[in-house]
Amino acid sequence: MKITLAQLNYHVGNFDRNSRLIIDTINQAENEGSDLVVFSELSLTGYPPHDLLEYREFIDNCNRYLEIIAGHCLSTGAIVGAPAINMGESGKKLFNAAWFLTDGKIKDVCFKSLLPTYDIFDEYRYFEPSTDFNIIEFKGKKLAVTICEDLWDEQDFDHDFASSRMYSISPMEELAKLHPDLIINISASPFAYTRTESKKEIFTAKAKSYRLPLIMVNQVGANTDLIFEGNSMVVGPNGNIISLFPDFREHTESFELDNIIAGDNNSFNKAGKISMIHDALVLGVKDYFDKMEFNSAIVGLSGGIDSALCLCIASEALGPSRVRALLMPSMYSSRHSVNDAVELCNNLKVSYDIINIEDDFRSIESSLSGIMKDMPADTTEENIQARIRCILLMAVSNKFGNILLNTSNKSETAVGYSTLYGDMAGSLSVLGDVYKTDIYRLARHINKKSEIIPINIINKAPSAELSPGQKDSDSLPDYDVLDSILYQYIEQQKPVRDIKGEKVSQELVHRIIDMINKNEYKRFQAPPILRISNKAFGHGRRMPLVAAW
Amino acid sequence: MKITLAQLNYHVGNFDRNSRLIIDTINQAENEGSDLVVFSELSLTGYPPHDLLEYREFIDNCNRYLEIIAGHCLSTGAIVGAPAINMGESGKKLFNAAWFLTDGKIKDVCFKSLLPTYDIFDEYRYFEPSTDFNIIEFKGKKLAVTICEDLWDEQDFDHDFASSRMYSISPMEELAKLHPDLIINISASPFAYTRTESKKEIFTAKAKSYRLPLIMVNQVGANTDLIFEGNSMVVGPNGNIISLFPDFREHTESFELDNIIAGDNNSFNKAGKISMIHDALVLGVKDYFDKMEFNSAIVGLSGGIDSALCLCIASEALGPSRVRALLMPSMYSSRHSVNDAVELCNNLKVSYDIINIEDDFRSIESSLSGIMKDMPADTTEENIQARIRCILLMAVSNKFGNILLNTSNKSETAVGYSTLYGDMAGSLSVLGDVYKTDIYRLARHINKKSEIIPINIINKAPSAELSPGQKDSDSLPDYDVLDSILYQYIEQQKPVRDIKGEKVSQELVHRIIDMINKNEYKRFQAPPILRISNKAFGHGRRMPLVAAW
Repeated sequence: MKITLAQLNYHVGNFDRNSRLIIDTINQAENEGSDLVVFSELSLTGYPPHDLLEYREFIDNCNRYLEIIAGHCLSTGAIVGAPAINMGESGKKLFNAAWFLTDGKIKDVCFKSLLPTYDIFDEYRYFEPSTDFNIIEFKGKKLAVTICEDLWDEQDFDHDFASSRMYSISPMEELAKLHPDLIINISASPFAYTRTESKKEIFTAKAKSYRLPLIMVNQVGANTDLIFEGNSMVVGPNGNIISLFPDFREHTESFELDNIIAGDNNSFNKAGKISMIHDALVLGVKDYFDKMEFNSAIVGLSGGIDSALCLCIASEALGPSRVRALLMPSMYSSRHSVNDAVELCNNLKVSYDIINIEDDFRSIESSLSGIMKDMPADTTEENIQARIRCILLMAVSNKFGNILLNTSNKSETAVGYSTLYGDMAGSLSVLGDVYKTDIYRLARHINKKSEIIPINIINKAPSAELSPGQKDSDSLPDYDVLDSILYQYIEQQKPVRDIKGEKVSQELVHRIIDMINKNEYKRFQAPPILRISNKAFGHGRRMPLVAAW
Repeated sequence: MKITLAQLNYHVGNFDRNSRLIIDTINQAENEGSDLVVFSELSLTGYPPHDLLEYREFIDNCNRYLEIIAGHCLSTGAIVGAPAINMGESGKKLFNAAWFLTDGKIKDVCFKSLLPTYDIFDEYRYFEPSTDFNIIEFKGKKLAVTICEDLWDEQDFDHDFASSRMYSISPMEELAKLHPDLIINISASPFAYTRTESKKEIFTAKAKSYRLPLIMVNQVGANTDLIFEGNSMVVGPNGNIISLFPDFREHTESFELDNIIAGDNNSFNKAGKISMIHDALVLGVKDYFDKMEFNSAIVGLSGGIDSALCLCIASEALGPSRVRALLMPSMYSSRHSVNDAVELCNNLKVSYDIINIEDDFRSIESSLSGIMKDMPADTTEENIQARIRCILLMAVSNKFGNILLNTSNKSETAVGYSTLYGDMAGSLSVLGDVYKTDIYRLARHINKKSEIIPINIINKAPSAELSPGQKDSDSLPDYDVLDSILYQYIEQQKPVRDIKGEKVSQELVHRIIDMINKNEYKRFQAPPILRISNKAFGHGRRMPLVAAW
């Protein structure tokens, strides 16, 4: 049996595009003599469809397109992910399903049993967990078809609580009783740099434990905040990895089942953390623009490292001709800021404009003078500068259709060192899940071959340049100390008393966590943030606003 | 047996405040000879605690305070809602629990079985559904303790799909087998004007069906977007309502069980829809400020009806001395706008300032002239005006600590007739779940006794006044037509083909729905919206941004 794994990039709700992609792949596989083509979880709808699943019309469309796709499966069989209506008397309205299509018809269906409902996942919002387990028989082989989380039954919690396993059922344990020849897992498993190794282990362990060959097909591409790395896998019955599909790009490849069973372990040179984050962010920006059919981007360039890195990523994702920069120095901008920013634009071949905001600042100041009288300057005046820049960026965006990219990093987003309706503005936050210490690593990664980002931008002390002589270090600890506290609290969800590290006192931990909690209200209004960790700000982290904690 | 129902207002995560409230009520009930005091669902944490439940420290605090509260229960028993750690080998880490405290100790606990995971509810994100059912025995009575959704097993879906019931288990059916004397339901059921009648029916039907007395205790008060109306109930075994607690305020009252069983049906004059919405919004603003310890509010007053209504509600919630208004006319403001706004401030005794934004607009325009050249004016210039107003409002907010209230209504929020980082700014959206047609009804409701809102504000044709002679009706259908389409699509989730009404063509429906979908990205960055319907923008409506639909 020849099996084709189709690691493809889907667009949520775009049935025309997704079904065309699926049908083209089926036709090609059929031409190449493949017996079975496997697509990823909810491939027909794209993942995640969110509340579109609540609209009857959306589900009717799924069924209609599924019939069309089935019409293209002749001798070849296909496994396609799409929701199924729950025809039972009770329960949630839908199942998350793997449809088996062949002979021009819908032949069989398997339902997902374990529904991730944590972090960015909301599957129990829509789907009934299945308690029936069935095998698909095709061309003399028995296929155990599982959907993503179905094989993750043994995952541990990230942090210490009473129970050790999230699920009470093991779908594969049930399916094993039916003596399958092959485990198939269709996934929609988003990228997190903290999870790349553990993902591999889950599939190799399952194959080994049941002494069965296993194929896993993941989707690739970005849908708003979520970026899927692909990394589909073919695993032999000893847990040996026969094939690991590439990161962050579409890939379709076929394998003979006998060769999977007999195959040797192959070694794969995985990219490092920073390289994967870089590729994820580039794909995140690219897909956002491609799928929204946006033509071009605008970035406000301060001369600092965050906006410089953001411009590099945008330029790589879209090409320099589809990106423009706006430099908006004020009376507090350092001498080098404009020069550094201009040099960066020249290096990237990105066009730029310069508007000095001093006059606009004086005009606003004068408008407010009747109310403010002679009150001393404070963060009010700093915020006014950030908000004037937002007006200018959005004006260019509105007039020319350049989509504004937000350049805030995760460290400042965490502690609230950013201005709502100012530098927090943008359609998409490119770096909002990247800690400042990793911002530097990414900048050096980009400069590996040649100095694209002027070294001065990397070396200067971080400053918002909103008041005379201001430095980030005036009011924040060093970024390696800060990021270590943030990571332990946000990603690892450690209790305050367990947050430790060099130069980390309990007083500092309390001060930082207080800043995080006090700024939930700002993050509530932040743009969607490209997610690269296991706990990004946004949908996956739902903290109350009105709360005393 | 004398039973006390405690309808109280909790603050999420504020264990000191919540436990003090609970202990004071227990002490008072004990003094009055009550046998049992019943508090609402998750009363100790406040509802909804969201991801605070994922922090081990938060749960440890729950347990610690629960012990303290138990120490105050002597002869009186108390039922308190708080999470419980799942001590089993598998499953989610917590149960949503009702704790039974008496004799100074934690005596017993019941776990929630049906976990709402739809709209604003995410309970399966945190809790394991219980499959065990136990009765609490106390002073010779058997108590069937249920938690909110546990009695909602028969609820229908709002719209047509295959299965007719969301849940496969009926907790009360299981508990009935244990022959209870009384049904207790502890709730955290937020207000929606569409649901007040159906809520009552659920409890009267359950009491009648099991021929048992029933008490339901709901929390009251607002936590960010969610407003809880209270309306706790005492129902006799014939389904007769013995007592219906007031809307939107704390209330504690005791009942003899024998009197509940023997009691007659009482009739209750319920407030109408508009009156309830009004009271909900006032409480929503009040609790937001009280619980966040914010002193005062600022409202940008345009002379239009939305900001006028918002100012009235803020003034009622906080008192006029804790509210200030800012009038920011431009060259496009109509002659009456400033006069009407000033008259309103005088009627309310709210202080105001006036800043003409024309100079700031000219300054920004001049800054942009190098880039814009002689391009014709479009929405860019309209947005600049809205964003200058945002800068001024936020500057006053930053300098004086007045919290900005957002004044957008649901109709314009739906179709995107508002400026991101402009009039979409604010800490809290007061009217974002109120359709324009209801905005008028609320204004007339406020003017019932005397003309607080100048009649000219109510009668003038709606206009954003951002370009010469602009009227909402230039590009939108009449608001009664628009709101009818919006309601059918948003609240009722009807398929496009089923959206009908006077002056409603399929072309118009398509155009409006297209506007709704295209503006998801704006609403993603909107402030939290006080929720008064069964489907508000925000947490309860999760639509994908990058999607073709």
